[in-house]
Amino acid sequence: MDDVKIRLYVDQPMGAGQSLTLDKGQAHYLFGVMRQGLGARLAVFNGRDGEWLAELRAAGKRGGELVCLEQRTAQRDPPDLWLLFAPIKKARTDFIVEKAAEMGAARILPVQTDFTNAERIRQDRLQAHAVEAAEQCGGTYVPEVAGLCRLSRLLDGWDAARQIMFCDEALAGGSSALAGSLAGPWAILIGPEGGFSQAERARLRGLPFAHAVSLGPRILRADTAAVAAMTVWQQALGDWQ
Amino acid sequence: MDDVKIRLYVDQPMGAGQSLTLDKGQAHYLFGVMRQGLGARLAVFNGRDGEWLAELRAAGKRGGELVCLEQRTAQRDPPDLWLLFAPIKKARTDFIVEKAAEMGAARILPVQTDFTNAERIRQDRLQAHAVEAAEQCGGTYVPEVAGLCRLSRLLDGWDAARQIMFCDEALAGGSSALAGSLAGPWAILIGPEGGFSQAERARLRGLPFAHAVSLGPRILRADTAAVAAMTVWQQALGDWQ
Repeated sequence: MDDVKIRLYVDQPMGAGQSLTLDKGQAHYLFGVMRQGLGARLAVFNGRDGEWLAELRAAGKRGGELVCLEQRTAQRDPPDLWLLFAPIKKARTDFIVEKAAEMGAARILPVQTDFTNAERIRQDRLQAHAVEAAEQCGGTYVPEVAGLCRLSRLLDGWDAARQIMFCDEALAGGSSALAGSLAGPWAILIGPEGGFSQAERARLRGLPFAHAVSLGPRILRADTAAVAAMTVWQQALGDWQ
Repeated sequence: MDDVKIRLYVDQPMGAGQSLTLDKGQAHYLFGVMRQGLGARLAVFNGRDGEWLAELRAAGKRGGELVCLEQRTAQRDPPDLWLLFAPIKKARTDFIVEKAAEMGAARILPVQTDFTNAERIRQDRLQAHAVEAAEQCGGTYVPEVAGLCRLSRLLDGWDAARQIMFCDEALAGGSSALAGSLAGPWAILIGPEGGFSQAERARLRGLPFAHAVSLGPRILRADTAAVAAMTVWQQALGDWQ
């Protein structure tokens, strides 16, 4: 198999002989930044059809064309794990999305909690971070970044079949192990810096499908907690097993 | 116990009635940024004597004075775990140091590998990040950030009693479990982006005290890998048990 250095997400159907159109940003990256020329080979994926070897057939300032040669790896979807987190600062929010994609979250849901002030997020920018992380980590799947939603509203319409692992700093020093009936879809909920409100904590503790978990004796920042919680989950129930 | 909002690292001996001198930076933070006045109470720690409740006795533009009232928590040192990593980009390096302190590393060692170009690091700036992380995470210990050292030189003088968990992206999809005789001191070694060289990998694999571990099927960035590896270790052997 050809050893390629470049992986590119192209949201178009892929198959042998299929041609792919590059947009202006992709053309700039391939020709301007990476100095690729006609005949160059790279890996492409669309989040559904696995990874394909593709060859550059046309190059211009405003676009270009690739042709798919052969599939390099089959599509591999992550486990059915959502990551819910409360966005606060821009840089940390970007990092959480990047890390969620690398760690294998299937869906990323920014939530407003009682102690979160974020009124809006740049969903398109966060989605671009998820794409970039997928390109970098070698995965063939790109998690969707959902729009900002209030946690209370999300819980109102929650499917009880999806269990929730919620990381509560009030538990610092408690158990980090997952217990109970573990099969089926899951979500990890990372609290905001400043923690959950008493009302939120009481509601979460009352949900039969929600499990409070401790992430050690120190208080972790939200982005650290996201990676640590996904590690615990992936090792116990996910695709690290 | 008084509920205090501010935690400050002050590198001076602490004890009941002990007075602490604030430097210009600490004075600016307490009086300028946090708007504290005489009589205000905060938590202080020096990395050795636990956490103390302290009261502001003098405030000026260039300094100030605190007095220790009573110990709030006893000193708690992390397990004897070192984190070795190859610094590349500034922001990621800062994050790794921050996360290592939050996750409970006892010592942080930046290393040069065959595929690392970093010639020098700002050790003082990285140490300041470790202090800030300790202030934020509620810990009473501040890990030392060592000077940059070549990995090969570090391994030449390695104490064989300290086992190494090395995270090798070439193992993607292998086991993330730690196996073997697990007691005693440990170090986690995170490879550089671009991976270890063949020579490094061969040497590490030949060391009887080094254990290769996989961190799942996707390739993680160095800062993500550092948190994930410390989670695996803390859950299995450290203070998350």
